[in-house]
Amino acid sequence: MDAGLIGRFAAIVGPRHALTDPAETEPFAIERRGLWPGATPLVLRPGSVSEVAAILRLASETATPIVPQGGNTGFVGGQVPDAGGREVVLSLSRLNAIREIDVSSNTVTAEAGVTLHALREAADAAGRLFPLSLASQGTAQIGGNLSSNAGGTGVLAYGNARELCLGVEVVLPTGEVLDDLRKLKKDNTGYDLKNLFVGAEGTLGVITAAVMKLYPKPKGREVAWVGLESPRAALSLFSLASDRAGMSLTAFELMIDESLAFVLRHVPGAAAPLGSRHPWHVLIEVSSGRSAEDARALIEEILGEGFEAGLVADAALAASLSQAESLWKLRESMSDAQRHEGASIKHDISVPVASIPDFIAEAWRAVVKIEPAARLVAFGHMGDGNLHYNVSQPAGGAPADFLALYREVNDAVHDVVRAYRGSISAEHGIGRMKRDELIATAPPVATDLMRRIKAAFDPAGIMNPNKMI
Amino acid sequence: MDAGLIGRFAAIVGPRHALTDPAETEPFAIERRGLWPGATPLVLRPGSVSEVAAILRLASETATPIVPQGGNTGFVGGQVPDAGGREVVLSLSRLNAIREIDVSSNTVTAEAGVTLHALREAADAAGRLFPLSLASQGTAQIGGNLSSNAGGTGVLAYGNARELCLGVEVVLPTGEVLDDLRKLKKDNTGYDLKNLFVGAEGTLGVITAAVMKLYPKPKGREVAWVGLESPRAALSLFSLASDRAGMSLTAFELMIDESLAFVLRHVPGAAAPLGSRHPWHVLIEVSSGRSAEDARALIEEILGEGFEAGLVADAALAASLSQAESLWKLRESMSDAQRHEGASIKHDISVPVASIPDFIAEAWRAVVKIEPAARLVAFGHMGDGNLHYNVSQPAGGAPADFLALYREVNDAVHDVVRAYRGSISAEHGIGRMKRDELIATAPPVATDLMRRIKAAFDPAGIMNPNKMI
Repeated sequence: MDAGLIGRFAAIVGPRHALTDPAETEPFAIERRGLWPGATPLVLRPGSVSEVAAILRLASETATPIVPQGGNTGFVGGQVPDAGGREVVLSLSRLNAIREIDVSSNTVTAEAGVTLHALREAADAAGRLFPLSLASQGTAQIGGNLSSNAGGTGVLAYGNARELCLGVEVVLPTGEVLDDLRKLKKDNTGYDLKNLFVGAEGTLGVITAAVMKLYPKPKGREVAWVGLESPRAALSLFSLASDRAGMSLTAFELMIDESLAFVLRHVPGAAAPLGSRHPWHVLIEVSSGRSAEDARALIEEILGEGFEAGLVADAALAASLSQAESLWKLRESMSDAQRHEGASIKHDISVPVASIPDFIAEAWRAVVKIEPAARLVAFGHMGDGNLHYNVSQPAGGAPADFLALYREVNDAVHDVVRAYRGSISAEHGIGRMKRDELIATAPPVATDLMRRIKAAFDPAGIMNPNKMI
Repeated sequence: MDAGLIGRFAAIVGPRHALTDPAETEPFAIERRGLWPGATPLVLRPGSVSEVAAILRLASETATPIVPQGGNTGFVGGQVPDAGGREVVLSLSRLNAIREIDVSSNTVTAEAGVTLHALREAADAAGRLFPLSLASQGTAQIGGNLSSNAGGTGVLAYGNARELCLGVEVVLPTGEVLDDLRKLKKDNTGYDLKNLFVGAEGTLGVITAAVMKLYPKPKGREVAWVGLESPRAALSLFSLASDRAGMSLTAFELMIDESLAFVLRHVPGAAAPLGSRHPWHVLIEVSSGRSAEDARALIEEILGEGFEAGLVADAALAASLSQAESLWKLRESMSDAQRHEGASIKHDISVPVASIPDFIAEAWRAVVKIEPAARLVAFGHMGDGNLHYNVSQPAGGAPADFLALYREVNDAVHDVVRAYRGSISAEHGIGRMKRDELIATAPPVATDLMRRIKAAFDPAGIMNPNKMI
């Protein structure tokens, strides 16, 4: 990239906000696990929507590839440039104003660079709940959350980022601004543009702001940890719980015992929630708009009926907020704890909820055919049909030996996913990681339509090239 | 249209299902109020997805315009051919199989021609709730509901047709079939194609089947009728009710007294729900997954607090299922009852919920400037920010005089809608009725993107021409 063009881009944002020193650009070029290490000649940090527009206008004129980036916490390489050193990173971090909180309409209008944590805090201060919640929320930004249609633990009752979004402001590749920042729950005026940009991983335009839904804060919240025999028992318990609690069932997380064992072994201070071991575990959360007593009565009813039906082997109800947090921490530490057990091969899959037990068993039969000593570390959002179906290497084995099986294990698990008409990316997206697989395995009719959309929105192909589609 | 081509189309579905006799085609060419009377040389009633595909393939080859049609209940002329006599109607009525009900995954897979009523009944028989509910549900079909993203009274807690839909099967203009009939709550594999077809009014392809969400049946349901002073009191009561009930608040309908007065005057058997008259009314419904007692306690708490806060002037709680149905019937008869009071000018608008009181007042100031004796007959889904802001002619006046003001009143109301960043079509769609207005008033950036989508999906322009965009 020639110095003259760098200078023209830099002039838009001012020299302070145009980074070219590799020491400064590297954190934007490489994601936090160091996968897909990239390189960029220039990181631009615009401070306004009009600066974003000017950048994209210039990029279009000069055919400069642009990689939009939020908190750089994505898991599939969608937010980092490739190693070619030609792609300019457009960081949205400085667009971090919360433009408005409307407590009567239950909406917040926030710019793309607002961190998820800051958004949750602002909602809380206004007496409202913003329910999207991720382990990375201190760093992840709402623009990235929308571009990747983030999920997390709050999806069961409140939906994913897509469902929480009412309106968007998007800068198109041409630099035109689509202002669709509306607070409307109902609007049938033309094609659904919003849902095209949400989940598009920055390949169609740059989301610069969004109107997100807020909810009343629950007055009561109860968390229980349940030990049980099997995923099938968990499925029956889930049916029972959602039947009783309806949308007051705000989490239903399924975890294999190995996931818990890893946490107990590697996370300082982690304590077993139950007196005895069980093959599977469930974390249940219910929330009440009425009172703490109401939430307590509801969860006790669910657990009581679960015991009677023989679904629940043992259960512990959090007696305090801090106990509830400890239970959640066990669940949230599972992904990290796996690191300490060597290499792992991870899958972010979803299948119809009813198929979860069969899927777990069938995928496992496929995995142990490849590596009989592999360890299943499956956990996730059962109520959404979404599991992190992770596989850890044999205890004491060589990580490289196991990672040599990566593709084989991946293909085997994803074949079972497809047999159940599931998704190979339930919440993390496609990015660079799964692009080839998407193209190879999605129906050609679908990928053809996606390519037509891409060409219609970004004819010059400057937006996050070679990601997603 | 020449006889040879008619014959080729007829051969696909068989002569019995290819209608050409004007007496037979007329019900498909004209919508039930007789607005936008159209004409068609041919109505095709395919019995399978492959027949739909063959029809569209032939239509593409021969540049034959196709108008997909469900129950022909739409309000905006999106489902009827124009008067030119060239457009072939593709009726989905015979594709009326419920392919599967999966009670564990809480999904139903239904073909486009299944009536909303039949779908609700099938869900009910399986012990589940399908929450979409419309006055026209005996005739309206799920394919049309999806193509128009239907709303209705269940949106507050359960969402509109779009939000209830998990997957679609679509025949593209080329005759290719996109099979995306997945039961997944989470799936981040590429652009959101589903949400493009939902709400597209058949201009991008033909939805032939869909996977829809089911919900547990509430165990308790309570309905109350509330008299109150003003929309502002209703807004405060709505905040209170949603704060207490969360997603157990399954309806919150606002109605001006005139709407009720028309029903009491014209609907046989209709009885005033309260002893005295009030300027405004609200119908509140709460549902409980736990028990009838629980629902009762919740609604009593809301009403009690509403009284204490001075928001509720009077209230009646339905003492039985049949009383609850009578209260709902009052609300549902409002649109029809208006007919008996002469001409009306109707608006299907939404604004941010918090703006409802100001919108009502400001729009009314604009209307009475045009016709001081006009009567406001506003009612609708307050919790969704969606009002049917209807205006009836002066009592005893000439309908034609009032209808001469149609455009002027429409423009005045819609100008206020736009000032509040609202929608001129909250739930009924664009069709033919509002196409020119959409094009004239939507941001050119948005209409340009919509045109690019249309061109990318339907390059030959055969799908429901001159509708929506």
